Amino acid sequence: MGKNHRGLLISFEGPEGSGKSTQAEIVYKWLLKKGYETILTWEPGGTELGKLVRDILLNRGLFIAPKAEMLLYGADRAQHVEEVIYPALKNGKIVLCDRFIDSSLAYQAYARGLDINFVEQINILASGGLIPDLTLLFDLPIEEGFKRKKRGDFDRIERESLEFHKAVREGYLAVARNNPHRVKLIDASRPLESVAEAAISAVDEFLKGWDGDAEAD
Amino acid sequence: MGKNHRGLLISFEGPEGSGKSTQAEIVYKWLLKKGYETILTWEPGGTELGKLVRDILLNRGLFIAPKAEMLLYGADRAQHVEEVIYPALKNGKIVLCDRFIDSSLAYQAYARGLDINFVEQINILASGGLIPDLTLLFDLPIEEGFKRKKRGDFDRIERESLEFHKAVREGYLAVARNNPHRVKLIDASRPLESVAEAAISAVDEFLKGWDGDAEAD
Repeated sequence: MGKNHRGLLISFEGPEGSGKSTQAEIVYKWLLKKGYETILTWEPGGTELGKLVRDILLNRGLFIAPKAEMLLYGADRAQHVEEVIYPALKNGKIVLCDRFIDSSLAYQAYARGLDINFVEQINILASGGLIPDLTLLFDLPIEEGFKRKKRGDFDRIERESLEFHKAVREGYLAVARNNPHRVKLIDASRPLESVAEAAISAVDEFLKGWDGDAEAD
Repeated sequence: MGKNHRGLLISFEGPEGSGKSTQAEIVYKWLLKKGYETILTWEPGGTELGKLVRDILLNRGLFIAPKAEMLLYGADRAQHVEEVIYPALKNGKIVLCDRFIDSSLAYQAYARGLDINFVEQINILASGGLIPDLTLLFDLPIEEGFKRKKRGDFDRIERESLEFHKAVREGYLAVARNNPHRVKLIDASRPLESVAEAAISAVDEFLKGWDGDAEAD
């Protein structure tokens, strides 16, 4: 599918406690300061519909079949792409998205065990084939990620077993291996400032190429 | 996809006001009386998860993108098939389902205008390829259907335009034309008793063939 917009989609991915949301905020502020028209958004829950779907997905008391779970993430994504991401890209903006298609591969396929073709098909149907221009993958050992989290109020996903979250990490690493040009692996076990430096430098590097052909269609 | 269960899936379909839910109840009671192990269920909302998804789908205040809407129906369906329909079919039961895959074709493809391949793909992914053995389609002119409904508390779907609901009906009729062996068209503009007679007779006819090879796998 050819790219039919002038914007840039950068996704932030990583397991629980990887600090990707904090890093997304830091990169967001840096881009604004540099003068780029930028929006920061997230999945699930980046729209009014998405918030309701997110409430279901994180509901601790509920049994959700893996396929149904994937379809709910798909519904959230379809709405998000149509209502938020695609309009911004068409306007030439930079869209920073905290979780996108790779989360589904890591969580639903690798960790939950759904057929990877099933997940990829829903991803494509939901996103209309939209793929990030750049993905920053914040990687760290699961045990370290969980040390950063407060145990008390874990949601339905965070409460999954250590094995589940290890499989999420392995899934992400597989995604990185399979998409070496798109996915930039960042060691997130370092102090926040070093991670931020690496994230900004990866985006800065990417923008040099982008500025050059921003008018290309 | 081969049939790998001993049960029977009968879906009840039709536009708003067609009386399909009432007819499903009548057929349900008739089957129980005849001694068949039968369950009566529905979409959306046939599971705990489904009820939450249904609340979103019928929420009058919400903008839902057509693709997201289809994916939500898909999530409801995937959960319903896994939690309710498939276990019952495996136990050799008759499952009566008030709305199933054809509702998505009529509402999401024909009326909402989504690509029919998109709808069919989600249908297959959500249902695992499960197709009703028999579908009773309760057909009547839309204006008559709406005469039977109370205007006051229309939900998000019922509030759609007359054109939308006419397209739903046309969609159903196309589904019937494309699946002449599976879909039994029933004139629902007649009095309830005549419609019930036609519905029961269609199911009775179908069961004669089924009883014979109930052990076939």
